[in-house]
Amino acid sequence: MIRTPYLLFLGDAPDNLAAKVAQGIADWNPENVVGQFRMDGCNADAGVQDLSLQEAYDKGARTLVVGVANRGGMISEGWLRVLAEAMEIGFDLASGLHNLLRDEDLLKATSARSGATLHDVRIPSVAYPIANGLKRSGKRCLAIGTDCSVGKMYTGLAMDTEMQKRGMKSTFRPTGQTGILITGKGVPLDAVVADFMAGAVEWLTPDNDEDHWDHIEGQGSLFHISYSGVTMALIHGGQPDALILAHEPTRTHMRGLPDYGLPTLEQLRDTALPIARIANPACEVAGVSVNTKALGDDEAARLCEEIEARMGIPTVDPFRHGAARLVDALVALG
Amino acid sequence: MIRTPYLLFLGDAPDNLAAKVAQGIADWNPENVVGQFRMDGCNADAGVQDLSLQEAYDKGARTLVVGVANRGGMISEGWLRVLAEAMEIGFDLASGLHNLLRDEDLLKATSARSGATLHDVRIPSVAYPIANGLKRSGKRCLAIGTDCSVGKMYTGLAMDTEMQKRGMKSTFRPTGQTGILITGKGVPLDAVVADFMAGAVEWLTPDNDEDHWDHIEGQGSLFHISYSGVTMALIHGGQPDALILAHEPTRTHMRGLPDYGLPTLEQLRDTALPIARIANPACEVAGVSVNTKALGDDEAARLCEEIEARMGIPTVDPFRHGAARLVDALVALG
Repeated sequence: MIRTPYLLFLGDAPDNLAAKVAQGIADWNPENVVGQFRMDGCNADAGVQDLSLQEAYDKGARTLVVGVANRGGMISEGWLRVLAEAMEIGFDLASGLHNLLRDEDLLKATSARSGATLHDVRIPSVAYPIANGLKRSGKRCLAIGTDCSVGKMYTGLAMDTEMQKRGMKSTFRPTGQTGILITGKGVPLDAVVADFMAGAVEWLTPDNDEDHWDHIEGQGSLFHISYSGVTMALIHGGQPDALILAHEPTRTHMRGLPDYGLPTLEQLRDTALPIARIANPACEVAGVSVNTKALGDDEAARLCEEIEARMGIPTVDPFRHGAARLVDALVALG
Repeated sequence: MIRTPYLLFLGDAPDNLAAKVAQGIADWNPENVVGQFRMDGCNADAGVQDLSLQEAYDKGARTLVVGVANRGGMISEGWLRVLAEAMEIGFDLASGLHNLLRDEDLLKATSARSGATLHDVRIPSVAYPIANGLKRSGKRCLAIGTDCSVGKMYTGLAMDTEMQKRGMKSTFRPTGQTGILITGKGVPLDAVVADFMAGAVEWLTPDNDEDHWDHIEGQGSLFHISYSGVTMALIHGGQPDALILAHEPTRTHMRGLPDYGLPTLEQLRDTALPIARIANPACEVAGVSVNTKALGDDEAARLCEEIEARMGIPTVDPFRHGAARLVDALVALG
């Protein structure tokens, strides 16, 4: 539905975390990425070629993907000028922001004139049911974090990739805009109406072969007061058989909440597991996924060893070390 | 905004729980209720006079309030005929159902012809912010349940009424359609988009005098997999100083989920309190509210005594015994 390949729009992202959508697409769907477009003041880098709009179009890019998230999802005046110019050149636009492309007068008018398509992947396109809690066949794994933006999506994608490599049955199930832009489908869970959140997750992860694994993309954190309700709905709608604890070791406070400290991995485990067992009494915490991007190789390895000794479950950075040991842990659950 | 007094529409409610909206209005806003309208097959009774549409109109009723909830909020053909007839007689309509009055062709057409107003109180009318977690002044109390529909709203209303009687500063803060229909304002939380749930609760319970209590209407249950995300957002957005545990002793399984048993009050306390202390480290479980509607006087008194001995906190049915001891418990928190 969305024309490929993409040019990634990083805007004036203040840091790499703000551009995690672009980074996710560049990492997991590189064959569909021509390059990135950065504005003055941009401090993010998705690690692909910097191109002007025209250069990217000439290299074949057909959709400019908004790969940067702002708190609250506002579209600034500066962004609007670039997005409109891209449509004049011939690009379609795709975005997962709360603030919709289609709600911006300039973009709507330019789209009408140029014939460009506006893809707002944030918007649910399905009337999701209320969750019924019925036990579903097949297996499900969910990554839950000590904070938001600690690597839950990467963990799911890496485990799915590893299972595919082994010839196992598995599917990555996106619940956010990056995952949807990578795979082309999913549930934009943070835009679903409250009563239907858990039902949307049930819908996303239906009955399947008994030896099939869904890797459900996690959202928020039980300990992040802004989004904990979304995490809760993922746990109860997903009825996971396995939880993976996700952690970023350099975070000093909860993202966007300077007054809130992070929980320990033990606190996360002890809070989440009883909650998960309401929906699936067989649920186990199977492993720990550490986002070691900010650490050197030795430091990363030492930290994973230390956490593994403490927690007694396989601990890796799936992006750095691969997800093999996490997949082994799921296989061991039977 | 909604014209009073009301005629309560109970439809063909299969039981009193399905008509809890009508019952809530009859109990807490009786001066604005003329009577009830019941269809064939209705097994609910709000305890007010049965009237035909015309009789109620002649007695002064000006709004027919849909006081019955269906799972998923569907409006049946049989209901539509009655609602349209009411508008022809001169009534406005008010409803908190998910399925909007304004989305029904027959009702929209009849409303346009008759001049009747359609009030869909389910729909949020405010662009709520993302929760910021900042500590707010004033005190807040939230009732949380072992299940849905166990008396959380009644508990909040009764405690607010008791505080008003004592001349204390307090406000009931509705988060559901019944509360909104009773007080005329509030947040229809189960219709709010996921990312803004906790922010909507912050918006509903702003800074206030240090000796002012907000009684936040609870929703769902941490143990009800369909709605637990909404409950989570109430706990983290409301940052309550006090939790009241709400329980209905005759429930044999979670409402609408035959395979799910109820938690004990101890499990509810031990699950909820650590979660609440993420947002407010000073939070305490202050009391237990038991819905003893199905029990005789002696049995109700014995059960409350037994729970109080077990849990070590004041335990009453606020509707039967009054909320004085629960209010005393809040006062004792300081």
